[in-house]
Amino acid sequence: MPPEISEFSTASVPNGWRDTPARAALVDFVGRVCDPGPGQVPPNERIAVFDNDGTLWTEKPTYIQLAFIIHSMAAAARADLSLEEQAPFKAAVDGDLNWFDSAVEQHHQGDDSRLKEFGAAALSIARAEATDDFARRSSEFFASTRHPTLGRPYTACGYVPMVGLLRYLEAHDFTCYIVSGGGRDFVRMVSGSMYGIPPERVIGSSLGMEYRDGRVVTTGRLDVFDDGPAKPAQIWSHIGRRPIFAAGNSDGDLAMLEYTTNGSLPSLAMLVGHDDAERENAYSTGAENALRRAKTDGWLVASMKDDWGTVFGD
Amino acid sequence: MPPEISEFSTASVPNGWRDTPARAALVDFVGRVCDPGPGQVPPNERIAVFDNDGTLWTEKPTYIQLAFIIHSMAAAARADLSLEEQAPFKAAVDGDLNWFDSAVEQHHQGDDSRLKEFGAAALSIARAEATDDFARRSSEFFASTRHPTLGRPYTACGYVPMVGLLRYLEAHDFTCYIVSGGGRDFVRMVSGSMYGIPPERVIGSSLGMEYRDGRVVTTGRLDVFDDGPAKPAQIWSHIGRRPIFAAGNSDGDLAMLEYTTNGSLPSLAMLVGHDDAERENAYSTGAENALRRAKTDGWLVASMKDDWGTVFGD
Repeated sequence: MPPEISEFSTASVPNGWRDTPARAALVDFVGRVCDPGPGQVPPNERIAVFDNDGTLWTEKPTYIQLAFIIHSMAAAARADLSLEEQAPFKAAVDGDLNWFDSAVEQHHQGDDSRLKEFGAAALSIARAEATDDFARRSSEFFASTRHPTLGRPYTACGYVPMVGLLRYLEAHDFTCYIVSGGGRDFVRMVSGSMYGIPPERVIGSSLGMEYRDGRVVTTGRLDVFDDGPAKPAQIWSHIGRRPIFAAGNSDGDLAMLEYTTNGSLPSLAMLVGHDDAERENAYSTGAENALRRAKTDGWLVASMKDDWGTVFGD
Repeated sequence: MPPEISEFSTASVPNGWRDTPARAALVDFVGRVCDPGPGQVPPNERIAVFDNDGTLWTEKPTYIQLAFIIHSMAAAARADLSLEEQAPFKAAVDGDLNWFDSAVEQHHQGDDSRLKEFGAAALSIARAEATDDFARRSSEFFASTRHPTLGRPYTACGYVPMVGLLRYLEAHDFTCYIVSGGGRDFVRMVSGSMYGIPPERVIGSSLGMEYRDGRVVTTGRLDVFDDGPAKPAQIWSHIGRRPIFAAGNSDGDLAMLEYTTNGSLPSLAMLVGHDDAERENAYSTGAENALRRAKTDGWLVASMKDDWGTVFGD
């Protein structure tokens, strides 16, 4: 039997975690950088960065951002029936998720044609879209849809122990950022209500933006795909400091975790291990390199199954 | 005789300003967005943005960043004598500022050849430079040079009343950002000590950055030239909110000021008017459109001569 969820306050341990070595490692690290001593780090250098998909909220069966794009494509095709002549729009209207899965599969086999078709269709929806219009479009998505397998609103698909960790770090004068491979402006829509992270502390993939007639609108071109080695570069561009704590869950976070642990200050890198088939999902595909690296470099791997007292909130 | 510098605290009026209508306009605006009433703005929406060159510190006779680049070029040429075969390096070593001025002049006459030569030389210094190495290089510049006409360190070339305004706004729960046409990483070197603005709140021009072997290094290509319409786009990308206060001094700030005043919340746009030949400089070249717009749209123009009790600190 795993131990029960801790009842301690946010300031002494992170909420939602069981009393296990993983929680002890987090508490030890925070004590080390906060308490007087050789490892103490000044508050303004206590920067923590968190991946989003699979680290702060669930990413299966599909990225929530992908569900949003498909949702938007279907809406666009219903408003303009001629769009259904294009395969991605037709697949969106038909709810044919296999089409999108096969685009990725073909990509892995060296054929990018379907993925490019999807990308062009996705960008066409967002072309010259003002920030307010994007906010409306994504709000409608969050208000009108639910997670297909969990049956709860997407905004309730965040991990309680990771929110507990955000608050625990903040209680110790850390400043926390989200560094997502997902869309910056998409994540910003929920980062405040779900994670207590304001828009200025959300870094992510983004379209080009330009100023037109008093508004900021998208160029409809991809500017940054914030994954892999782009993450440390984006962290520097946005924050101008090297983090001392980083949490991720996949190979796309490897560079960010490596960057975090490669500085002169004490640091901790952590992976969320998806090993909880009952409460969430059990998979390690796409995290093989990160998990291997965690082993050789002593990064913390938190087991969702063993270390988390709860996964989702009410 | 203009009135004396106010002795009021930061919380009631900005330090360094005389008791004039300009100061009253600032105080009225802050009161309006802070006090209970229809114009009240919640603290998290109280975003203020400040241009740097000519707004927070002096920009004449040359941009300080240009002085830094010339300084770096001269150092590079002294370390590698073959570089002197290239005109920009030779001009830097010879202290021939006319060469650089004429590059800009030729550019205005439609001939970019010299400006391109300069750009290539400037970028060549910064190619594959790690963030730590840039910090060392720019620290050396600030430590070893002085402003050519003011005779003071560049780090003492900031405007006292603008620092007073930053603190005054912060005392009223504003969050202040620098949005500079100058280099983001260059401005970050002094933003903390000169203005009390941390690196994560400095937005500016930037080279591309990439992750290599545990470090973030420049690509040596220009990524963003943060001037004109790029400023509002960068503000959105970085902050994800529309500011309600903006200060600038030139046509390059026009789009930022327009964006700030184009939202649904109460807002104030302000220009620093360089009309103080005795204490700083008197010029309006490059600010003609912004000053015209200030007149038609009722933007505040602060007169350095009449509204500022002091310009530079000790």
